[in-house]
Amino acid sequence: MINKILVTNRGEIAVRVIRAAKELGLKTVAIHSEVDKDSLHTKLADQDVCIGPALSKDSYLNIPAIISAAEITGADAVHPGYGFLSENSKFARICADHNLVFIGPSGDVMDKLGDKATARKTMSEAGVPITPGTGIIKDVAEALKFAHEVGYPVIVKATAGGGGKGMRVAWSDDELSSIFPIAQAEAQTAFGNPDVYVEKYLQNPRHIEIQFIADKHGNVAALFERDCSIQRRHQKLIEEAPSPALPEEIREKMVEAVRRGAAHAGYFGAGTMEFLYDEEAKQFYFMEVNARIQVEHPVTELITGVDLVKEQIRVAMGEKLSFTQEDLKIYGHAIECRINAEDPYMNFMPVPGKIVDLHFPGGPGIRIDSHIYAGYEIPKYYDSLVAKVLAWGRNREEAIARMRRLLDELRIEGIKTTAPFHRQMMDHPDFIRGAYSTKFMENFKMK
Amino acid sequence: MINKILVTNRGEIAVRVIRAAKELGLKTVAIHSEVDKDSLHTKLADQDVCIGPALSKDSYLNIPAIISAAEITGADAVHPGYGFLSENSKFARICADHNLVFIGPSGDVMDKLGDKATARKTMSEAGVPITPGTGIIKDVAEALKFAHEVGYPVIVKATAGGGGKGMRVAWSDDELSSIFPIAQAEAQTAFGNPDVYVEKYLQNPRHIEIQFIADKHGNVAALFERDCSIQRRHQKLIEEAPSPALPEEIREKMVEAVRRGAAHAGYFGAGTMEFLYDEEAKQFYFMEVNARIQVEHPVTELITGVDLVKEQIRVAMGEKLSFTQEDLKIYGHAIECRINAEDPYMNFMPVPGKIVDLHFPGGPGIRIDSHIYAGYEIPKYYDSLVAKVLAWGRNREEAIARMRRLLDELRIEGIKTTAPFHRQMMDHPDFIRGAYSTKFMENFKMK
Repeated sequence: MINKILVTNRGEIAVRVIRAAKELGLKTVAIHSEVDKDSLHTKLADQDVCIGPALSKDSYLNIPAIISAAEITGADAVHPGYGFLSENSKFARICADHNLVFIGPSGDVMDKLGDKATARKTMSEAGVPITPGTGIIKDVAEALKFAHEVGYPVIVKATAGGGGKGMRVAWSDDELSSIFPIAQAEAQTAFGNPDVYVEKYLQNPRHIEIQFIADKHGNVAALFERDCSIQRRHQKLIEEAPSPALPEEIREKMVEAVRRGAAHAGYFGAGTMEFLYDEEAKQFYFMEVNARIQVEHPVTELITGVDLVKEQIRVAMGEKLSFTQEDLKIYGHAIECRINAEDPYMNFMPVPGKIVDLHFPGGPGIRIDSHIYAGYEIPKYYDSLVAKVLAWGRNREEAIARMRRLLDELRIEGIKTTAPFHRQMMDHPDFIRGAYSTKFMENFKMK
Repeated sequence: MINKILVTNRGEIAVRVIRAAKELGLKTVAIHSEVDKDSLHTKLADQDVCIGPALSKDSYLNIPAIISAAEITGADAVHPGYGFLSENSKFARICADHNLVFIGPSGDVMDKLGDKATARKTMSEAGVPITPGTGIIKDVAEALKFAHEVGYPVIVKATAGGGGKGMRVAWSDDELSSIFPIAQAEAQTAFGNPDVYVEKYLQNPRHIEIQFIADKHGNVAALFERDCSIQRRHQKLIEEAPSPALPEEIREKMVEAVRRGAAHAGYFGAGTMEFLYDEEAKQFYFMEVNARIQVEHPVTELITGVDLVKEQIRVAMGEKLSFTQEDLKIYGHAIECRINAEDPYMNFMPVPGKIVDLHFPGGPGIRIDSHIYAGYEIPKYYDSLVAKVLAWGRNREEAIARMRRLLDELRIEGIKTTAPFHRQMMDHPDFIRGAYSTKFMENFKMK
């Protein structure tokens, strides 16, 4: 049983978790760094504890301070949100050792899925399609042999990589021969581990991911897909559900593959399985599992009616999933725009500052997840997300129309944000047609 | 075809209509009184016109000024919202005479349904159950004869009445004999028309109303019920959909009755048919039709996914309904609390003032419809509604839990509001059980 949850995060996701806990009648404790003492999550929680100076390594990544905060306040569970310690298996184990329910998968499952080569192997065993690729290879000759089998282009990836780091594409033998040792050296520098592997490289894939959640009684449900192809440097900018590109028969196959894969990994809690999707071939390929709640989870909540964070807490308490796969139906269409404190006219440069005036639109089909308020000073130390604004519609056309009027009405004064980018996107003919891949942003220019 | 809509209202409903128009790509014109020049609806519209001094009779009821505003701005349609001129058949006809599309039923339909005795007759012809009652009666002997037929209590009502005015209950011959002439005199004073009729009086009914909408091609859809039994002096305080008291077979009967009744009246546009529902006898009785959009329409939008205001505009343009009756399914549960600038500890006395700080909660399942902002001064001239706050959940329990956390997080500083009343209601055992009638507030005391 859980009575009091320590939320080991900040910003909008900390607010999101506190709201879910309140709806379940549970107490909450916020942690905050010195510069976050006036942050909304600190105000909304029942208690709050300062756990260190501004830098993440001294506060939101400071495991001893966080465990102390739990002990001082009598919290009996920990929700890690996303980022920070959310996928740190060591932290998950330390929580367990201190009799704190870690709201997420076990440290062992995280380890199994955190290493990309192991994750590919695990999913392949469960019959989840993976990109044609090698295991860890040390020698460029092996890489060349693989490239001749599957054809160029291929991509060299660091086993320990993530967020686009440690990846290099080769289009010929010469290029592969030259980048292979570079990729190894980069992997060593970035991740302290030189191991790389090689995969067939898809040229214009879509990024399609499936939300799933599993309880401790063997039930796994997959809550359909999100299309997160609009990315810039592997950072998602717009997400939508369902994908405008996924035929129903492929959706069903992906849902079944994800349920098999999650069950095979012994997963419990919420997670996301990310895929690359080749629209022409109608083929999907496993990329990785994110063993946590994701930034973009609200689009799934809007089309399924499921509260994923409350469901995370429930399954962590040992309850069965409150719904079955058969209960789930796609209801309408949802789009999320990530409003960041960045200047889209200046190459998306972060521009923290003080919010002097704020108006979030309301009305039908709108959802706002945010931690900002008028008078709030955005600290420069953390990520630049200031609000997730979402529009739901009976169909994609209505969701886009709502997002337009939402963005037209939105006012965040005092800082520059990505809202003008999103507003232009809602009028972009390729976005309106749903015709975009992960390469979309390479050719996008602000008007 | 409509290109530009003049919104002949103020407050949250004007904002609601402007948002709907924007989603349809239509231009909007706001009208405002002198004291409303900084109101949100004025800021959000493409154009705005001051149509007179503060008092409603000089501004929002000033038909010549409103028609001039339409002509000056080139508006080709009028949306009247609720209240003010929304059910004024003369205004509807004047709009038509000036080639303005009136977004609502025709003046003739309004007249037919605006008179209660005629409305009862029309609905009875269509097989809609009506409360046992008389036509207009002039003589107390007729009233006594009716009372003996159906048994006491009975209620004497003014034909021209509304909002609880001109109604008197009698429990005996003596009482009926004494109140009958009083009711006639009151009707004359309040409405300029002494006509009254007598009905069987239900002692603990629920107020259940059915939302419907009809196009000009003969299609009528009924969007299920709202339970609006929590009322104080005939003013609704909380509305929910679906009703916690309505069995599915009764819902189906009501839906069919409403579709028949609306078709028989030659109705087009959105409307609401109000019923009294006798829970024990499982009987519903027609009360009246509200020939306009209602304050509480968002609970219906939340459980059906239909945007009623956009649909109003579409059918006014001559389009067919964008859905069929068979497309409609009840999706989850929704509750609306009307946050009024009233002091619930002082007998709900209106307390206008200036909003000095404002925080509307966000996150899953929340909808806010409001026209207020930090720094906004609430004029004393109009109604006291400052925000409609809504919570949706997969089931009623989740909707209540969300409303609790919404109200706990809501901050409207600088004025007193009804929020503390709503927060207490969400913990009230009778509300939680769904066991309440229109008499609920007679015994309610604030803690």
